[in-house]
Amino acid sequence: MGAKLKTAVLGATGYSGVELTRLLLRHPLVDKPMLLSRPAEKETTEAANLADIFPALSGNGGYPLQPLSWSTLKEQGVELLFFATPHQASRSLVPEALSHGLRVVDLSGAWRLKQEQNRAVYGFKDSDAATAAELTKKAVYGLPELNSDQIPSASLVANPGCYATSVILALAPLLKAGIVDRERGIISDSKSGVSGAGKEPNARTHFVSVADNLSAYAVFGHRHMGEIVEQLHLSASELIFTPHLLPIPRGILSTIYVHLNSVTTPAEVESYFREFYAGKRWVRVFATPRLPEIQFSLNTNYCDLGFCLAEDGRRLVLVSCVDNLLKGAAGQAVQNMNLMYGWGEEEGLH
Amino acid sequence: MGAKLKTAVLGATGYSGVELTRLLLRHPLVDKPMLLSRPAEKETTEAANLADIFPALSGNGGYPLQPLSWSTLKEQGVELLFFATPHQASRSLVPEALSHGLRVVDLSGAWRLKQEQNRAVYGFKDSDAATAAELTKKAVYGLPELNSDQIPSASLVANPGCYATSVILALAPLLKAGIVDRERGIISDSKSGVSGAGKEPNARTHFVSVADNLSAYAVFGHRHMGEIVEQLHLSASELIFTPHLLPIPRGILSTIYVHLNSVTTPAEVESYFREFYAGKRWVRVFATPRLPEIQFSLNTNYCDLGFCLAEDGRRLVLVSCVDNLLKGAAGQAVQNMNLMYGWGEEEGLH
Amino acid sequence: MGAKLKTAVLGATGYSGVELTRLLLRHPLVDKPMLLSRPAEKETTEAANLADIFPALSGNGGYPLQPLSWSTLKEQGVELLFFATPHQASRSLVPEALSHGLRVVDLSGAWRLKQEQNRAVYGFKDSDAATAAELTKKAVYGLPELNSDQIPSASLVANPGCYATSVILALAPLLKAGIVDRERGIISDSKSGVSGAGKEPNARTHFVSVADNLSAYAVFGHRHMGEIVEQLHLSASELIFTPHLLPIPRGILSTIYVHLNSVTTPAEVESYFREFYAGKRWVRVFATPRLPEIQFSLNTNYCDLGFCLAEDGRRLVLVSCVDNLLKGAAGQAVQNMNLMYGWGEEEGLH
Amino acid sequence: MGAKLKTAVLGATGYSGVELTRLLLRHPLVDKPMLLSRPAEKETTEAANLADIFPALSGNGGYPLQPLSWSTLKEQGVELLFFATPHQASRSLVPEALSHGLRVVDLSGAWRLKQEQNRAVYGFKDSDAATAAELTKKAVYGLPELNSDQIPSASLVANPGCYATSVILALAPLLKAGIVDRERGIISDSKSGVSGAGKEPNARTHFVSVADNLSAYAVFGHRHMGEIVEQLHLSASELIFTPHLLPIPRGILSTIYVHLNSVTTPAEVESYFREFYAGKRWVRVFATPRLPEIQFSLNTNYCDLGFCLAEDGRRLVLVSCVDNLLKGAAGQAVQNMNLMYGWGEEEGLH
Repeated sequence: MGAKLKTAVLGATGYSGVELTRLLLRHPLVDKPMLLSRPAEKETTEAANLADIFPALSGNGGYPLQPLSWSTLKEQGVELLFFATPHQASRSLVPEALSHGLRVVDLSGAWRLKQEQNRAVYGFKDSDAATAAELTKKAVYGLPELNSDQIPSASLVANPGCYATSVILALAPLLKAGIVDRERGIISDSKSGVSGAGKEPNARTHFVSVADNLSAYAVFGHRHMGEIVEQLHLSASELIFTPHLLPIPRGILSTIYVHLNSVTTPAEVESYFREFYAGKRWVRVFATPRLPEIQFSLNTNYCDLGFCLAEDGRRLVLVSCVDNLLKGAAGQAVQNMNLMYGWGEEEGLH
Repeated sequence: MGAKLKTAVLGATGYSGVELTRLLLRHPLVDKPMLLSRPAEKETTEAANLADIFPALSGNGGYPLQPLSWSTLKEQGVELLFFATPHQASRSLVPEALSHGLRVVDLSGAWRLKQEQNRAVYGFKDSDAATAAELTKKAVYGLPELNSDQIPSASLVANPGCYATSVILALAPLLKAGIVDRERGIISDSKSGVSGAGKEPNARTHFVSVADNLSAYAVFGHRHMGEIVEQLHLSASELIFTPHLLPIPRGILSTIYVHLNSVTTPAEVESYFREFYAGKRWVRVFATPRLPEIQFSLNTNYCDLGFCLAEDGRRLVLVSCVDNLLKGAAGQAVQNMNLMYGWGEEEGLH
Repeated sequence: MGAKLKTAVLGATGYSGVELTRLLLRHPLVDKPMLLSRPAEKETTEAANLADIFPALSGNGGYPLQPLSWSTLKEQGVELLFFATPHQASRSLVPEALSHGLRVVDLSGAWRLKQEQNRAVYGFKDSDAATAAELTKKAVYGLPELNSDQIPSASLVANPGCYATSVILALAPLLKAGIVDRERGIISDSKSGVSGAGKEPNARTHFVSVADNLSAYAVFGHRHMGEIVEQLHLSASELIFTPHLLPIPRGILSTIYVHLNSVTTPAEVESYFREFYAGKRWVRVFATPRLPEIQFSLNTNYCDLGFCLAEDGRRLVLVSCVDNLLKGAAGQAVQNMNLMYGWGEEEGLH
Repeated sequence: MGAKLKTAVLGATGYSGVELTRLLLRHPLVDKPMLLSRPAEKETTEAANLADIFPALSGNGGYPLQPLSWSTLKEQGVELLFFATPHQASRSLVPEALSHGLRVVDLSGAWRLKQEQNRAVYGFKDSDAATAAELTKKAVYGLPELNSDQIPSASLVANPGCYATSVILALAPLLKAGIVDRERGIISDSKSGVSGAGKEPNARTHFVSVADNLSAYAVFGHRHMGEIVEQLHLSASELIFTPHLLPIPRGILSTIYVHLNSVTTPAEVESYFREFYAGKRWVRVFATPRLPEIQFSLNTNYCDLGFCLAEDGRRLVLVSCVDNLLKGAAGQAVQNMNLMYGWGEEEGLH
């Protein structure tokens, strides 16, 4: 057996970063990853070790954090660099990483969107507009169930948003089958645990604000909206996407409403899902009347899909669940790596 | 000032019953209520006092539970009897209560539905079908913001369901204004705390099943569906109603999706709400972009309403919150009582 | 009936401040309170109204926040000023308030401690040391069940800490009875909801840090330690006090361990509690084997006390519960006000 | 590489049973386990597959449940049978299993206690008292960190209780070192998540009873008391053990109070722990002032230990955390299996 792949994680101190670190440490084909702090990251400049920030990791020999240095990455033979950074940091540093010959999986929203009008909500500042435009074009949207043909050869994989993953995977089979009445509009009422909102303490993530509560936010204006319409080839007016903040640490459930073009049976609907996901390791289709719940996919890399069809055979409610830190972030990043290196999609994700 | 009203609560040991008891004990125009156990209620036949079941009540002189007896109610001068009982128990006992000259507020679903096809889901067994049919007709749906003209003289008030309250109050102003494109369908994605599922322990209400979870249930088949379509004069095919179980003890948030007939402004939408609820004490309308959250109406009798209009002026997302045990049950029952006796709607509900 | 008391709340935007505001608004003998922001309080300089910060309050006519001004307080006829401020702010401003002839109830730790070694942990900076020393001496520790003789005439009431309230009320009757073997040491293992940690967002109060967790903190070093030993006349070495952070928004439960001097019966133990708290409205003593739980006193001003005696009659476990924002803060402040103005202790606290 | 070990799990449908099943499925040295329902287990007689009860497991080829049959176990070559059953079921069936030549790891309390007075609280009914007495004597208490000499050759391993594991591992090093003043009494104030109370729905495990709550229970009378005193060679009067029910699904934190015989330093205390657990894979010792929290060991097989010593060097607070379903149950069972078959203690537990 040959040498293991050498990887590094930039921004290992966020929720997605630490989850990714955990997965890489257990991955049978990957070396212990280098953990990099980014310039101006306060916590990591003070902490020398990831276990100082996440004591849950302690006692396994240490997880030293080091500053980002291209020459060190080269010396160590790192081939693949994961960005678990805020989107602007990714937007600034990814071009440099690629220019050093590294392959990149970026967990931020920096390179997910092809259309300018969808990127506006991020307000990116590009120092080199031409390069940024080129990379935007070249980046592959890293949803393995849709883009497994492009991911293996990609040098820059834009890892999908957590909400977007849950919505796209639920809708793709039906849109491909052409049974959705898009003119009547598609609605995704999505609910996420708090880790999706990031580790930064603020009034919205304070325990007392979240516990015993539920709130809708960013209605008609959430950043993941663009990914969904681009990947599903919808117009913005065909989709309403409403995120909600759940009083749980992690997990996403999207309840999605579509009208069908013609009268359909539950068996037909199920068959579209089964066909589309035949051989796909990380999607589970639930047979009616069983519906996914957040707990079922928690701590796994599964996207769970279920549905309920009205008696009239025309109105369909889809339920889609993912763990926002796994299939919605770090797990999917590993799945993308697996494809990039020609490994089985399930490697390191059991 | 005259004598205080004498009331009794049948089924005081459920979540709604005990909440109602609390409210009545603090109500300035009502005597300390009689607390009645119903035949075959195990817990109460063993417990002599409500504080044995709800120690939170202890130390205030006691809350003795007594068996239901029509003659005792008469002797004690009880005028108004609250039913906080399962629907079949209400269906069986309410006719008797009315025949003894009592006025009734029934918190169950027994008398809410006028149309037979909507009642089917309850599977009522009526020993005297003619009387049941007559009472069904006579019963007033106790949503004070809609039916304040009929409630004052009603002898039987059918207190609305918790989900139904949140949905009807959000939609009524817009449907009255005639701005909703009903043909495109209305969707209510509703989420409720666990007390809405009742006090009976079962696999679904076990802490480990609910915590860190979210689940949809009874899609296309929930009992409150009928109330909503009847009160809003919708056809069943015009509404999709999807309930979800939240990992919180109490509170409901409904996210409701409607298409408008023509391009509208936020100011117009707000004005329909403000007009409809002018002078209504227990509805709060939130100005855009502020949206209600479950915490805001928790432990109050408010229904909080907010909305978000798409830039196209045609797609509208409504958010409606109630405390399922107050505006969704016991608080609304008190509000109905206040109307039945000509008192201010806010009495005893601060 | 004469005019209602005029009050003001300084620091109404914290958890205790808003809870106090709610109570004062409902208090039958008190005018609508003035709500004051303190110098340099960011949130309130931006917000003009308390309902902007706590939307749960919205829709009742508004709760305007105004800057602190001694002359305005005088013009408005304010007699009593509540400080719901950080301890250093109280330490700085209370002397001024008293010099303007106001009576003060201070919810912070600024004036609770008589002994200098206990105050050290606060690190107070006094601009006028002599006045501070005088006020420290003059301040009355506002635990009504212990100090109801001094509170009525006090000009400065130091409202007790939440943990301290739960521990002192549990131990006072037994220490007074002289049955505790103090040499063997008293242990209070206390657990609190997150609102006790304040509204400031930080890594410790982030939802993801608290949910599904329990942690001990400030072992041997918590600020409330001093209050407990001073009020119970213990030496510091006789008490171990260990606070824990619970994944709930509010509520405290202290489990307290004592050894008794001689063999005792449960009936005797109960009698010491019943005697000590005879006629006390806001303490509930639970008879063995029933024990208080956090839910029982939640949203009430009660301190609930229960106990369990070992078969040997010598080892005693006490359980004491309070709502940290009510009996542990704002409710107790109102109870103190009631005593200061000669009203019933239960006024405004039902 | 030789054949994998064949195992079976009796009672796979409880929380510990399903956790154990998960671990065995991932264990590299063990075959896919047989999953057995026990006589009169309602859920499993209806369910044909474990994934029907725990949908989280679905989609991996199925987990068929079969009735217990000694001949089938023999035919299949099963060597090791795990009992994840109620204690009386274990007490009845384990003798039979052993007589069929199987080795047994029993997760219940059936065989943990050597002393009759400690067993009384279980009220065992033994059909064959002589055999039961013999097995009681022969059973090895399966705490690998203490009994790794006896476990490898044991035919019957009594897997420890979850609370007991957390308490024994915290105290064993200090008692061995002889530095504890046992006469002054040891106190363990322990807190557990709800899965520790089992899957049976009842009033105590209802979400609404647990959420936003904390309660002490079984004070002076919990079943795990006996294990702790037996394993630590304490007299019952030397230990107070108070369990509490936390509003979280899983995890245990024990706060333990001891007095030391003489003045000691934190470094000394730490050294006793480090020595005792040198080379032990599944205990992590935290250096002062860092303390374990429930989250740190959640979903791991670690027992995390930390401490805080008073300035007087005589009073010590220990904090011990385990995941009650892993190190407190299924994980420890696998650790025991690893010892029984001469494998590394960490196999299958990463």
